[in-house]
Amino acid sequence: MVRTVSGPRSAGDFVFHFGGHTPILQAAPRVPLDIFTEDAFSGRLSAVDQKPRERAPFPRVNPLTGPIAVEGALPGDVVAIHLIALVPARDWGVATVSPNFGALSGTRNNPNLQPEQDERVWIWQVDRTAGEVTTTTADGRARLAAPLRPFHGIVGVAPPHGEVRLSVVPDVFGGNLDLPEITAGTTLYLRANVPGAHVYVGDGHYAQGDGELAGTAVEGALDTRLVFDVVKARDGIEWPRIETDGEIGVVGCARPLEDAVRIATAGLVAWVSELSALSTLDAYQLVSQTCRIRIGNLVNPLYSVAAFVPKARLPGGPAIFGGVHRSLRDIA
Amino acid sequence: MVRTVSGPRSAGDFVFHFGGHTPILQAAPRVPLDIFTEDAFSGRLSAVDQKPRERAPFPRVNPLTGPIAVEGALPGDVVAIHLIALVPARDWGVATVSPNFGALSGTRNNPNLQPEQDERVWIWQVDRTAGEVTTTTADGRARLAAPLRPFHGIVGVAPPHGEVRLSVVPDVFGGNLDLPEITAGTTLYLRANVPGAHVYVGDGHYAQGDGELAGTAVEGALDTRLVFDVVKARDGIEWPRIETDGEIGVVGCARPLEDAVRIATAGLVAWVSELSALSTLDAYQLVSQTCRIRIGNLVNPLYSVAAFVPKARLPGGPAIFGGVHRSLRDIA
Amino acid sequence: MVRTVSGPRSAGDFVFHFGGHTPILQAAPRVPLDIFTEDAFSGRLSAVDQKPRERAPFPRVNPLTGPIAVEGALPGDVVAIHLIALVPARDWGVATVSPNFGALSGTRNNPNLQPEQDERVWIWQVDRTAGEVTTTTADGRARLAAPLRPFHGIVGVAPPHGEVRLSVVPDVFGGNLDLPEITAGTTLYLRANVPGAHVYVGDGHYAQGDGELAGTAVEGALDTRLVFDVVKARDGIEWPRIETDGEIGVVGCARPLEDAVRIATAGLVAWVSELSALSTLDAYQLVSQTCRIRIGNLVNPLYSVAAFVPKARLPGGPAIFGGVHRSLRDIA
Amino acid sequence: MVRTVSGPRSAGDFVFHFGGHTPILQAAPRVPLDIFTEDAFSGRLSAVDQKPRERAPFPRVNPLTGPIAVEGALPGDVVAIHLIALVPARDWGVATVSPNFGALSGTRNNPNLQPEQDERVWIWQVDRTAGEVTTTTADGRARLAAPLRPFHGIVGVAPPHGEVRLSVVPDVFGGNLDLPEITAGTTLYLRANVPGAHVYVGDGHYAQGDGELAGTAVEGALDTRLVFDVVKARDGIEWPRIETDGEIGVVGCARPLEDAVRIATAGLVAWVSELSALSTLDAYQLVSQTCRIRIGNLVNPLYSVAAFVPKARLPGGPAIFGGVHRSLRDIA
Repeated sequence: MVRTVSGPRSAGDFVFHFGGHTPILQAAPRVPLDIFTEDAFSGRLSAVDQKPRERAPFPRVNPLTGPIAVEGALPGDVVAIHLIALVPARDWGVATVSPNFGALSGTRNNPNLQPEQDERVWIWQVDRTAGEVTTTTADGRARLAAPLRPFHGIVGVAPPHGEVRLSVVPDVFGGNLDLPEITAGTTLYLRANVPGAHVYVGDGHYAQGDGELAGTAVEGALDTRLVFDVVKARDGIEWPRIETDGEIGVVGCARPLEDAVRIATAGLVAWVSELSALSTLDAYQLVSQTCRIRIGNLVNPLYSVAAFVPKARLPGGPAIFGGVHRSLRDIA
Repeated sequence: MVRTVSGPRSAGDFVFHFGGHTPILQAAPRVPLDIFTEDAFSGRLSAVDQKPRERAPFPRVNPLTGPIAVEGALPGDVVAIHLIALVPARDWGVATVSPNFGALSGTRNNPNLQPEQDERVWIWQVDRTAGEVTTTTADGRARLAAPLRPFHGIVGVAPPHGEVRLSVVPDVFGGNLDLPEITAGTTLYLRANVPGAHVYVGDGHYAQGDGELAGTAVEGALDTRLVFDVVKARDGIEWPRIETDGEIGVVGCARPLEDAVRIATAGLVAWVSELSALSTLDAYQLVSQTCRIRIGNLVNPLYSVAAFVPKARLPGGPAIFGGVHRSLRDIA
Repeated sequence: MVRTVSGPRSAGDFVFHFGGHTPILQAAPRVPLDIFTEDAFSGRLSAVDQKPRERAPFPRVNPLTGPIAVEGALPGDVVAIHLIALVPARDWGVATVSPNFGALSGTRNNPNLQPEQDERVWIWQVDRTAGEVTTTTADGRARLAAPLRPFHGIVGVAPPHGEVRLSVVPDVFGGNLDLPEITAGTTLYLRANVPGAHVYVGDGHYAQGDGELAGTAVEGALDTRLVFDVVKARDGIEWPRIETDGEIGVVGCARPLEDAVRIATAGLVAWVSELSALSTLDAYQLVSQTCRIRIGNLVNPLYSVAAFVPKARLPGGPAIFGGVHRSLRDIA
Repeated sequence: MVRTVSGPRSAGDFVFHFGGHTPILQAAPRVPLDIFTEDAFSGRLSAVDQKPRERAPFPRVNPLTGPIAVEGALPGDVVAIHLIALVPARDWGVATVSPNFGALSGTRNNPNLQPEQDERVWIWQVDRTAGEVTTTTADGRARLAAPLRPFHGIVGVAPPHGEVRLSVVPDVFGGNLDLPEITAGTTLYLRANVPGAHVYVGDGHYAQGDGELAGTAVEGALDTRLVFDVVKARDGIEWPRIETDGEIGVVGCARPLEDAVRIATAGLVAWVSELSALSTLDAYQLVSQTCRIRIGNLVNPLYSVAAFVPKARLPGGPAIFGGVHRSLRDIA
C-alpha cells in the first residue's frame, strides 16, 4: 500500500520555515507515502533571462512540503526517514550564480568591498537515458554535463526548544544539508522535538558537486516515495544520522567548516564506540583510518558535513537502531 | 632504466625542513628513480608501550628523503612528479593519539583549559594478501581493520621566497598534504622555486581516513619508484595540482578549512576555464555541479584540501600540461 | 514623566525567545520607561554549591523582559533604544564555568574528545562605593575584583522573516551581544521587523571582560530606565548600530570571528561613507586608521563584535539619524 | 650611554626574513641603542600616483633592521625588549589599498571570483604639533585625520626549529604583530631560539586602527631608541608577552581569529595563575571579567591578537620577570 499526497502542487501550499505549522497530514509508520516537492525557486525560474531575485525573492526560497506528522513519534524519539524513490518531476532543472552568495563570493556573512559578481542562470536539461543533465554556456559554444543523481537537499523536522527557522538554515534538526547521500536507499535519522516530529521535505537536486559551491545545485522538482518509522531509542540522538546499505554517518552543521567536521566526526566516534563496544580512543582510531568526509554545502548560514564509516569495518556486526534500515528497505 | 638511490637509510641522513639544503642527488627528467622513505617517527616507534614524544620529539617528526634536484627545472617551471609504485617497506605501521594534537583535541593552535587526552600507540600489521592493515584494541578484545592503500603524506619542493619551513607544515610548495590521491598512478605538479626545484618525499601512509583526524595515519616506511619531468609552462602555477587517469585537481592549504576549499576550488575553476576556454562563470558552474572535494588533513598548522573534476567533464578534451601525465604513465 | 513597568518580577513572566509573543506593553516614543530584568539564571543560582544546569537548565537561560511594542514603528524603520540608567537590583551577581561551554573549552559547536572541565560557581558581591564587584577563590585564599560597569548583555527585537529564536543567539536583530557599550548614555539602533518592533531586554552584566570568555559575565538583575524613538529612515539598516556621545559603531554576529569583524567593519565603512560623502575607499581608509574593535562574546552560537570610529573623525560633522541620540540624551 | 647604529640606511642593508642571518651588531644588555627602521615599502612609495607593487614588489615588503644579537641570551631564555622612544623619521607616511589584500577583500588565502578592488595610495602628513596625521581624499574634497601614535608593527626574533620566515608572517617568534601597544614605555618579551636571540625591528606605523583592515597602517620610517635585557627564566615562554606600566598581556597568532584569541587568553590565564598562585579556574574567572582584547591585524597570513589584564587586578602584587620592566623603564 502506498499513500499518495496529491498536494501541495501550488505555491500557496508550501511553507518556508521549520516549525510553527499544523501538519498537512498524518503518516503511519511503515506505510510508504508519495509526495511532490517544488524546486528551490518554486518552479518560477525557468529561463536564462529571468532574474532569480525577482522570481523567488528571499526568503521565499526553498519551499518545503510538509510538515508531515509521524504517528507515534514523541520528543526524544528517533524518526527514521527512508527514501524509496526520487524521480525528477520535470525535464529541466535550474542553477544560478548570484551576487553576494556562494562559496567563492563575499556574502552577507563575510562581506567585502569588491565589486559584486554578475548574476547568471543556467537551465539544465534532464537526459534520463544518458543519466545526465546538460546545459550550454552563455556564448552557446560549449555543452556542460553532469551526472543525473537526484537527491533531497532538504529533509528536516521541527526544531528543538520552540524555535522557528528559515528553510535555508541547516542545523541539528536537519534541513538544508545538501548531502547527495540523502537519496533512494538511504535512511535519515532525526531526533523528534515535537509530538509527531513534523517532517519537512524539499530542495530537490538533480545534480550537485561537493559543497554546492556556486550556491545552487541543479535545482528541480521531485516526485518522491518515502516511508517513516519511529525508534524508541533510550537517549535519542542529537545530530542527524545517515544509514545506507554500506555505511553509517553523522552530520554536523557549523561555521567554520572544521567545526562542522568536528561535530560529525566526534558524533561518529561516539556512535561507533557505542555500537561496537570500543573505548573512545579505539573508536577514534578506527574512524581516523577509515572515515570518508563529505562536504554538503559551503554556502548556507551553517555549513554542512557528514562523516561516514563502512559498516563492514565495525567490529561485532552490531544492530543499528534495531535494524530499522533493513526493515524499511524491505518495505521499499 | 631505473636509477636506485641506495640511501638514505639511516636517521642521520634525513632532513626535517623544506628548503636550505644541498641536493642529495640530481635526477634526470623521465628516468625512474627508486627511493626509500622513513615513517613519520623515523622508524623509532614500534611498540605500544613506547612514548611517541620521547622516540620522535618535535620537531624531529616527518623525516624527508631529499632534496632531489630535477635537472632543467628553473624557478617558475612546473615540476611533474609521477608516482609509479609504492611498496610498504615493513610489515607494520604505527599510529598514535597524543595530547594537544589531532582534530578532536585542543592543540597549541586552538588551546583550551580541559584536561588533556591520553597518549596511545597502535601498531598496525600489514596484510598484503587481504589488502588490509589490522590492529587490536588496547583491551585486546577487538580487531580493527582498514584498507591497505599506501600513499605519500608528503611530497614537496623548496619553498618560494627563500623560506625554510618545518616538514609538518603544508603550503603552496606542497609538503604535508596527506592526500590519498598522491599514490601510484598519480602526477603531482609543483611550481619550482629554486633551480632544480629540490623535491622532498616522505611520510608514507599505509592507510588513512579523510582528515587524518587523530593526528597520524597508519605511518609506515615506503619503497617508492617515481619519475620527474619539467613543464616549461609560460606562467607556471601557484598551488599544487594533481592529475590521475580520470581526474584533475587543485590543492589548497589554509585555516579555517573553508579557506583551503576556496583556494582549491577557485584554482580549479581557473584551470578548467583555461583548459576548456570557458568563461569564469561557466567554469564555476561546471565545477559546482561535478566536483569532488577531499579533506587531506585537519591537524597540521595549515589544513589541506583538494578539489577534483573528472577529465571526461571537460569540454574539448584538452591537453593538460602537454600530455605529460600520459607520457610519464607510459614510462612507468 | 517616567512610566514604570511593575512587572515582570516572577519567573513565569519572562520569555526565552525573540519573536512570537504578544507585547507586554506599548511604549510611546520619547517617554522614559522603567523596567526590571532578571539575571541569566532567573535569579535561581545564588550559592557556590548549586548546580547551574539544575537551577537554570538549557534553554531556560537568559530570561527576557518583553516584548515591548514601540508605537509607530513599522517594518523597515529604525528603532532607537536609548539607555538612561542601569542600577544593580541586587547586591550580588553570579558567574560560572561549565563543561562544554566557554571560549576555552570544547563546546557542542566545536566538540573534542578530552575530559570535560569542572563546573564552578562564583558569587560576586557588589561594592557600590568602590565601584567594584569582588569574590573569593575556591580555596578562600585570594580576593578577586573587577570594575562595576553594569550593561545589558541582551537588547533585541523580533527577528526578520518570521523566525523565532532562542534568547542565547545574537544575530541581525541584536539580542545576546554582550557589548559593554550597551549601557547608560548609549543609543542602540535596530531595524524593526514587525509592527511595533517588539523590543526585548535582559542579561544584565555587572562586569565583563572582552569576549565573555568563561561563558558568563558577572550576571545580575538590573533596574533599568530607557526610552525609545522611531527613525523613519528611508532604507533602514541591516545590522545593529550604536551611538554614544563620542563614537558610532556597527555590530556584526558570525562565526568564525573574522567574519563578525567583516560584517561590523564593512557596515561601518558604508555608514561613514554615507554620513560624510566619502568614496568607499576613502571611508575604508579612514576606518582602517581610526577604528576600535570590541569583541563582545566568543561563546554564543554566533560571536559578536562591534567596530567604532570617533564622531570627531567624521568629515563634515554629519547628522546621525537626524540627531536622535542627542535628543534622547536630553530627555534623559 | 646610548649606542647609535649608524646604519642600515640604504635599502641594500635591510633583510626580509626572520632567521638565517649573521647579526649586524652585538647589543649589551641594559645599554640603550638607537636604530633606524625603514617603512614597509622601503621608502620607495611616496606619491599617490605610484604603484605599490612596482615600488615594493612582494616579498620585498616590510624591510627589517637587524638582526641584533643580545649578549648572553641563550635558547630558552626570555629576551626583554624595552622601547624607549619612537620618533617619525619623516614628515609623511603612506597607506594603500591593493587588490587581493586586506580584511575586506578576497586574498590569496581566501580567494573569490569577484572583480578585484582598485589600487589606491594615500600620503599622510605628520602634524607633530596637533599630534595627528592627515591626508585628503582622492577627490580633494575632504580631509581625513587620525591620531599620531607611532609604534613598531614588527619586533621579532629568529624563529625556533631552524625555520626562516618571511617578514610578513607573525608567529610564535613575534614579528608582524601590528599591535599599537608595542610603543614607547612597553616591554616585549620573546623567547630566544638561537644564541643571541637575533632581534629584528621594522614596520613603523604612525597611526593604525584595530585590525589594520585595509592592509596597511600609516606606514613610516622611525628613529627608535630601545634597550634589551635577558631573563634567565626557568621554563621560558612560548608566545610573545607584553608589559606596560599598567597591564600585562599575551599575544596569539592564528587563523581563524578566535584561535588567536584562544592562544592569547589561554596564555594569559596560565600566566595570571602562575603570578598570583590562583587555580586555573580562578585565573580564568579573573581574566574573563577583566581582560581587554586587542586585534592587531586581520590581514597577515596569521592574524594577531593580544589579551591584557590590569596589573592592579592581580592578587598579591607579584614580581613579573623579576621586575625587569621597571628596571628598564628606569634606564630609559
